[in-house]
Amino acid sequence: MPEQRTAIYPGSFDPLTLGHEDIARRSLKFVDRLMVAVAHYPTQEKARLFSVQERLEMLQECFADEPRIEVTDFSGLLVKFCDRVDVHLVVRGLRAVSDFEYEFQMALMNRELDPELEMVFMTPGVEYTFLSASLVREIASLGGDVSQFVSKPVLDRLQAKLAG
Amino acid sequence: MPEQRTAIYPGSFDPLTLGHEDIARRSLKFVDRLMVAVAHYPTQEKARLFSVQERLEMLQECFADEPRIEVTDFSGLLVKFCDRVDVHLVVRGLRAVSDFEYEFQMALMNRELDPELEMVFMTPGVEYTFLSASLVREIASLGGDVSQFVSKPVLDRLQAKLAG
Amino acid sequence: MPEQRTAIYPGSFDPLTLGHEDIARRSLKFVDRLMVAVAHYPTQEKARLFSVQERLEMLQECFADEPRIEVTDFSGLLVKFCDRVDVHLVVRGLRAVSDFEYEFQMALMNRELDPELEMVFMTPGVEYTFLSASLVREIASLGGDVSQFVSKPVLDRLQAKLAG
Amino acid sequence: MPEQRTAIYPGSFDPLTLGHEDIARRSLKFVDRLMVAVAHYPTQEKARLFSVQERLEMLQECFADEPRIEVTDFSGLLVKFCDRVDVHLVVRGLRAVSDFEYEFQMALMNRELDPELEMVFMTPGVEYTFLSASLVREIASLGGDVSQFVSKPVLDRLQAKLAG
Amino acid sequence: MPEQRTAIYPGSFDPLTLGHEDIARRSLKFVDRLMVAVAHYPTQEKARLFSVQERLEMLQECFADEPRIEVTDFSGLLVKFCDRVDVHLVVRGLRAVSDFEYEFQMALMNRELDPELEMVFMTPGVEYTFLSASLVREIASLGGDVSQFVSKPVLDRLQAKLAG
Amino acid sequence: MPEQRTAIYPGSFDPLTLGHEDIARRSLKFVDRLMVAVAHYPTQEKARLFSVQERLEMLQECFADEPRIEVTDFSGLLVKFCDRVDVHLVVRGLRAVSDFEYEFQMALMNRELDPELEMVFMTPGVEYTFLSASLVREIASLGGDVSQFVSKPVLDRLQAKLAG
Repeated sequence: MPEQRTAIYPGSFDPLTLGHEDIARRSLKFVDRLMVAVAHYPTQEKARLFSVQERLEMLQECFADEPRIEVTDFSGLLVKFCDRVDVHLVVRGLRAVSDFEYEFQMALMNRELDPELEMVFMTPGVEYTFLSASLVREIASLGGDVSQFVSKPVLDRLQAKLAG
Repeated sequence: MPEQRTAIYPGSFDPLTLGHEDIARRSLKFVDRLMVAVAHYPTQEKARLFSVQERLEMLQECFADEPRIEVTDFSGLLVKFCDRVDVHLVVRGLRAVSDFEYEFQMALMNRELDPELEMVFMTPGVEYTFLSASLVREIASLGGDVSQFVSKPVLDRLQAKLAG
Repeated sequence: MPEQRTAIYPGSFDPLTLGHEDIARRSLKFVDRLMVAVAHYPTQEKARLFSVQERLEMLQECFADEPRIEVTDFSGLLVKFCDRVDVHLVVRGLRAVSDFEYEFQMALMNRELDPELEMVFMTPGVEYTFLSASLVREIASLGGDVSQFVSKPVLDRLQAKLAG
Repeated sequence: MPEQRTAIYPGSFDPLTLGHEDIARRSLKFVDRLMVAVAHYPTQEKARLFSVQERLEMLQECFADEPRIEVTDFSGLLVKFCDRVDVHLVVRGLRAVSDFEYEFQMALMNRELDPELEMVFMTPGVEYTFLSASLVREIASLGGDVSQFVSKPVLDRLQAKLAG
Repeated sequence: MPEQRTAIYPGSFDPLTLGHEDIARRSLKFVDRLMVAVAHYPTQEKARLFSVQERLEMLQECFADEPRIEVTDFSGLLVKFCDRVDVHLVVRGLRAVSDFEYEFQMALMNRELDPELEMVFMTPGVEYTFLSASLVREIASLGGDVSQFVSKPVLDRLQAKLAG
Repeated sequence: MPEQRTAIYPGSFDPLTLGHEDIARRSLKFVDRLMVAVAHYPTQEKARLFSVQERLEMLQECFADEPRIEVTDFSGLLVKFCDRVDVHLVVRGLRAVSDFEYEFQMALMNRELDPELEMVFMTPGVEYTFLSASLVREIASLGGDVSQFVSKPVLDRLQAKLAG
């Protein structure tokens, strides 16, 4: 009997886009359970649009329909978090060459820090290849309509945040 | 109880390098069974160093120790082969930006042809990031020593082929 | 009164894809007239799937609805053709980094050969960013369905050609 | 009779380089009128070397000889500005792969926000391919000679600003 | 009798990694003497982990065994420093495409500022291709083990700095 | 007393362009002697425009004014040639990202085959960044003027070859 396979999908998710959601849901084709993990670094919190708490809430709302996705957060090194939860498979999305170079560097570095860790990369649906959380923040802050780029729970919070 | 997960690792493998072997073995961290599948196209066979039959034999020898890896071959479209064996997860290695662009294009195209198909990408060990089958062929044909780039069964056949 | 603006869209178009059509039609937003020009080089004709004559016919059928697009062909240097028809604006599509590097090199080289020549680059619709004529040929020759990648006149000829 | 074609060339222009000027003047080969538009975002003004007002003045001086170029500014989303002035063609320069990836992402995103908008890309003269406004600022601030990279009006203001 | 060849290896070295050390020592295969030069810009000192003084001390300790390497620092433009010490050869390491584009731009710009200056690029050992000073800082600050990425003198100071 | 430094500049040089000449002459800033070495592979000779003998003659004519440059040829592996002539420094030009990836792969592979070998990369003058031997061949064969891309001895032979 095969064991249950779990992967971690780490990121800032500030905010979660439809591209992130697409990667998360697609990964369930080859893992039984996915931990979507919000990375937080105390020193960078000021620069964020949403707090870790807000991001966790949005992720929970967006993935409420999918019992195989668990939402969590971590601080510190990814390899230490992987070790603590005993999950050694990490999923990341790739959209562009610049993504690729950074992810490639991180994959090799993480493997150096933990030879057990394996990172696998996926491509989002073609309609999301140009999407990024920073672009969503920028467009929303300039009053643009981002309803085709994020889920309803994220859209509501973006509007509340920017109106506030 | 989780179902058994199978993936396909397609390629030319002309010949199999240690980089290919590394990707195949690492993939067993998240799949239960891997089909390493030699792609063959009748019109391109003349340009190959090894015949499909020779490549299958080398692959079988190199993976003889790993019962979870099955060696096979296919002709025609990858998506049709995936459909025929009812496996919808494909593994590919990424070493460089040029790999990435090509693989990205193929991943989007294959998803267009079969929305069920998912391609996941992995990076080989850092010591194999510069390795390619074509470089191995070129060095071996010029009399260079490729013993650190391929397994013993491949090395033996390369030497026999080039001496013949 | 502004003069009439004409551009040339050169390419192999072996065959014309929906991505090519998209670039051609979008260019009419800033030019009054577009010459879609099939490049032919006697020494490369053997490697083509369709003859220049067949490609011209397909282009004419695909753009029959658009009086502002003229279909033509040329051999020899692009800069000489531009000079002969007295059009000094060239349109090209960009999909990926590898496209970009090649096109950038050609744009600088062509400007060296003809300082009057200007090349402008456009991106196709996101749904066509993974499309290429060579991929269409490959998929069609392996029996895949390319009906979502090419227009009806191209599809009919592809099927006739590959059945023949 | 063809209608008059207008394009927008948006940017920070902090300061305008000879590479920017080259793109602007070359674009007049295929548009009748160009609006060079200084983008300003209240939150980023502190980080700029020149104020929007100073940049507008420099642009006006540099393009004083060209009646077909109009200098303006905008805040907020580019697509909204395009809509307000009813111009749906945007010109951008491309120098390197990193430019390309960013511009490609923006082009696809902007088309999503406004399907009427078309972005076209141009390459500057080869002697400007390594030039950027940030490099000009850095060299000038370290006391280097930038007279071969910017026009006289920009050079004068750079020297006054850095001496001040 | 050939003259003595000297090169400059400029960088931030915040801190020096084994990848930097590798480039420096390899360069001695083609130069007789190398000046490893810490670049400092007053306005950026706040963002640094180590002061210029600390970085100079670490460099001196790491290269204490190599009399052909001299450690120094400079502020202002690299081309002016090269001119002052009358050394017109600059060595830089290349690890990835993003490095390449930046370095290429700087090489062309520096040649414009000083036609005598020549920049040569080297690749570090494959085991260092994923290493960067910023990654070392990040991992160390999150409590990760960086002992395989930096020399003993750097490791000691990193631990003292982060404990302090 | 420093020893004499020699480097090898290997390539196909089919034909030598002004970009190649630029790299060769610039390298004399840090080596005392340069061996420009025409690589030849029996199996590829048919595809060449010029024979190895013709390329050697053109190189000798183009570098006749520079006694520090020696023209030679080699077949087989570059690392074996380096070993035979006891020169362990190799110079290569870099123009674009695609060059970089290939050269990076070769540099790592060659170092694996010969740990003593060091490859250094240089950028040609900005006016040659778009030049390649294959582009020169293509333009010349289509009747274009390549007099600004190659030296007189190469131009004469190109014209004789293509007229013949």
